[in-house]
Amino acid sequence: MTRQQLTAMIRSTGTYLCVGLDTDPSKIPDHLQSHADPVYEFNRQIIDATKDHCVAYKINTAFYESSGAKGWETMEKTVDYIPSTHFTIADAKRGDIGNTSAHYARAFFETLNFDAVTVAPYMGEDSVRPFLEFTDKWTILLGLTSNPGAKDFELQKMAPSAEPGRPTSEELLYERVLKTAAGWGTPDNLMFVIGATQADSFTAVRRLTPDHFYLVPGVGAQGGSLQEISDKAMNKDVGLLVNASRAVIFASSGEDFAEAATRVAAGYHQEMKTHLG
Amino acid sequence: MTRQQLTAMIRSTGTYLCVGLDTDPSKIPDHLQSHADPVYEFNRQIIDATKDHCVAYKINTAFYESSGAKGWETMEKTVDYIPSTHFTIADAKRGDIGNTSAHYARAFFETLNFDAVTVAPYMGEDSVRPFLEFTDKWTILLGLTSNPGAKDFELQKMAPSAEPGRPTSEELLYERVLKTAAGWGTPDNLMFVIGATQADSFTAVRRLTPDHFYLVPGVGAQGGSLQEISDKAMNKDVGLLVNASRAVIFASSGEDFAEAATRVAAGYHQEMKTHLG
Repeated sequence: MTRQQLTAMIRSTGTYLCVGLDTDPSKIPDHLQSHADPVYEFNRQIIDATKDHCVAYKINTAFYESSGAKGWETMEKTVDYIPSTHFTIADAKRGDIGNTSAHYARAFFETLNFDAVTVAPYMGEDSVRPFLEFTDKWTILLGLTSNPGAKDFELQKMAPSAEPGRPTSEELLYERVLKTAAGWGTPDNLMFVIGATQADSFTAVRRLTPDHFYLVPGVGAQGGSLQEISDKAMNKDVGLLVNASRAVIFASSGEDFAEAATRVAAGYHQEMKTHLG
Repeated sequence: MTRQQLTAMIRSTGTYLCVGLDTDPSKIPDHLQSHADPVYEFNRQIIDATKDHCVAYKINTAFYESSGAKGWETMEKTVDYIPSTHFTIADAKRGDIGNTSAHYARAFFETLNFDAVTVAPYMGEDSVRPFLEFTDKWTILLGLTSNPGAKDFELQKMAPSAEPGRPTSEELLYERVLKTAAGWGTPDNLMFVIGATQADSFTAVRRLTPDHFYLVPGVGAQGGSLQEISDKAMNKDVGLLVNASRAVIFASSGEDFAEAATRVAAGYHQEMKTHLG
């Protein structure tokens, strides 16, 4: 899916919601436990219940890997079930030396056929490049994350660089990451993860990367504000995929979980329509 | 396995070699292709051929994930096959917000029962903490990696921090990571990845973290020197697990791959004996 197609889909549906399938097996409602694969059945019903209110689904690989190979099968079935109209993200936060990253890229772009995968920047360019080399696929690099630990390194100040071609002003690590990585890809194959809880930084982030899409987690259970993000970070192509996971999929722990998910997703959809004007 | 047990095993066997099972399915010798699971059969023969010359095996998850759920099954069978005498590492480079990292920790420490997992530091303390909370398990945090991209962020200079309790001197990002993360765990549950190609930095690294074990990739195909690493970074408890992957497992692409692996692993073993004195 191209950037133009993604923007067109957001404009036509009136939503930039991404539903996060962080499906913790221990939180599946009891009445689904008799299914052969309760996590898949849960995901299937959540997808049916939310697809009219979102443009993307994000599968958090951790919640599948904790069940081993069986969990990977559930992930494969789930990504297959997502309607082809929707943008699919493997929230995997991978990254390793070049020949290893190439295998991760194949895992998520070929074997599982996701549209996008999240990647960690610590190891630098050759750890990210193999993901960018896939045409019609997206790399979503961690920029400024939503968790408290963002202060440990991401928000620490870098010294001006003395090397030619590197930034000469003081800046934070995540700003260095955004500036540097923006040169590795383009707004047509690279997005950034910017946490919704980091609203103070959204204006600065948008100044650094005016044309990129952001995947924004942290609305809902983590407390970020959809209005503030939208006011500060929307660009001419919308440029935002706002993710909610637990707030949608575990809106109810009872037999009405799917209806409850529809209700919460529809609420985001309604608010997003107003932000889209 | 405790640090004392690991050191004792290294002293008694005379080797601190870790064999990396970066088993690229496209590089398996032809004569194994008739097996139901050629990658598992390859790994099984490699383990038999090298176990007397190493103390650890490192499974690089990327090379299994690129085959999907089937690859995860192969990984499960492989880790089960590794003798219980040997230290097992999932080279997975995971890291995410706390409740997600907790699922990754369960995936590798419980479901797959590895002794250790590699973790990426970018997202800070709460992304690492869930791994450290497992008793009798090891977190191996990326410090200074062996790849060219290390220069993009890891080797960039941080400004002195103005915050109380944070470092006040100029230092490189990876040094900040080592110092900060050393306070999250102890030398009994935390190791660092330090690339063999970064030999210039080994003395500085050892000064910062005198008691920690290092997992050292980059010997062999990437060109790092075993002698230089051992001279500069061995501590009183040895403190080194030196990994070789492709140089051992793909020493021959023919029917003699296992004998060739034995030969290369035995060569490292012999050299390590002399470094252990």
